[in-house]
Amino acid sequence: MVRNLKITLAYDGSDFSGWQVQPERATIQGALATALEHVSRAKLLPQGSGRTDAGVHALAQVASFQLEAGIPTENLKRALNHVLPLAIRVLSVEEASPEFHARKSACAKTYRYRIHRGEICPPFLARYVYHYPYPLDEVAMQAAAAVIVGEHDFTSFAAVDFERGLEEEEPSNVRTIYSSQWVQDRDELVYTVRGSGFLHHMVRNLVGTFLLVGKGTLDCAGVGRVLEARERSAAGPTAPACGLYLVSVEY
Amino acid sequence: MVRNLKITLAYDGSDFSGWQVQPERATIQGALATALEHVSRAKLLPQGSGRTDAGVHALAQVASFQLEAGIPTENLKRALNHVLPLAIRVLSVEEASPEFHARKSACAKTYRYRIHRGEICPPFLARYVYHYPYPLDEVAMQAAAAVIVGEHDFTSFAAVDFERGLEEEEPSNVRTIYSSQWVQDRDELVYTVRGSGFLHHMVRNLVGTFLLVGKGTLDCAGVGRVLEARERSAAGPTAPACGLYLVSVEY
Repeated sequence: MVRNLKITLAYDGSDFSGWQVQPERATIQGALATALEHVSRAKLLPQGSGRTDAGVHALAQVASFQLEAGIPTENLKRALNHVLPLAIRVLSVEEASPEFHARKSACAKTYRYRIHRGEICPPFLARYVYHYPYPLDEVAMQAAAAVIVGEHDFTSFAAVDFERGLEEEEPSNVRTIYSSQWVQDRDELVYTVRGSGFLHHMVRNLVGTFLLVGKGTLDCAGVGRVLEARERSAAGPTAPACGLYLVSVEY
Repeated sequence: MVRNLKITLAYDGSDFSGWQVQPERATIQGALATALEHVSRAKLLPQGSGRTDAGVHALAQVASFQLEAGIPTENLKRALNHVLPLAIRVLSVEEASPEFHARKSACAKTYRYRIHRGEICPPFLARYVYHYPYPLDEVAMQAAAAVIVGEHDFTSFAAVDFERGLEEEEPSNVRTIYSSQWVQDRDELVYTVRGSGFLHHMVRNLVGTFLLVGKGTLDCAGVGRVLEARERSAAGPTAPACGLYLVSVEY
């Protein structure tokens, strides 16, 4: 009997060329496929809830795959953690209904972006935050973050990347943002965004644009105009990958 | 005029072959010397308070060096952080008295060892803790840690490493331990030890021995016998480098 399995993973993306399997490159999906083959002797390519780019981390990425063998889920989790690199950990393996698909079944995702504000970024955080020690108008950034809440066409914040296509593989760039806010957490300024889905580079482009607001280059009304422009060149630069985390995927 | 400078550094030792400069290897001392040469145009080899091994981290390592140039300490700190790898950060640069020497003037040091006790070690901690999820008798480990407080000959806990010599370059293996204890901190069991000085591998060999006590292989009286044996083979194995931090050096 073929079982449909749901796997939840945390990973430090620093040393990987992103989620998606690529020849000659260390990728999360590739490492997971290798580990699954080692454990189950089956060639499988687990489907992720979405791709994460090189250097992007995950607290709880979800993937799904079908497996013939009768290995109990708890044993599978343990065996995978035994063979996977320490930078990738399986948090859980669960039996899923036959129609479950990590990407197609997802109804919401949450991402987080960490900016370290201290003069000196501790070396132990260098891989896990974006270090920006210069002045920022955090009140203006908070107001700007609120502008994108709701249903919008996010073309201005999507990578111009036709070859790769959109993460959601939908023809539309319309997405719904349920919440979008900056929170000060000790030495860090942390952006958390929850939405129906995200386009390629969307969170990093949003953060890059909010940073323009923080620096005073753009105001809140400007963020509205960027949205309306539906043109990538209207938005700010792409913020570095190392600060970004896929926090959770909802089904 | 030649100034004597005291520099305090934090580093993630994961990707370095320890403190001491070695040909063809990335070392902390080597990276610091390269950065100092870049900034001051002088060839200098800063002297550390002691060597840390490959993979060992520092929250506040101290080094000293003499510099002719008149760069203000605050500018020197900023310039060094600009050229050093992100895994090494200069926390401060201070003018020191002419007789100050980072190693010879040190009167006490504190080290910390972090053991992650959770079933799964978060990937973001994999470089920074030793993952040991199996049962340990923490009460026995606490009692064992207390056994080494005071002045003792620590030969049993010193690396048999004649080529390299002792960290303190003294003929005696007698050191005084001021405090030695295990503390539970959420998912971690953390050992902190403060002493007059430490022999090569001493903290990692102490931790390896306390782990034998935690596993029930050795009892408290056994730790006393290990001390008395003055024989490396009497103690436990060397705990992995990644859990160890040089916390501070006192002068």
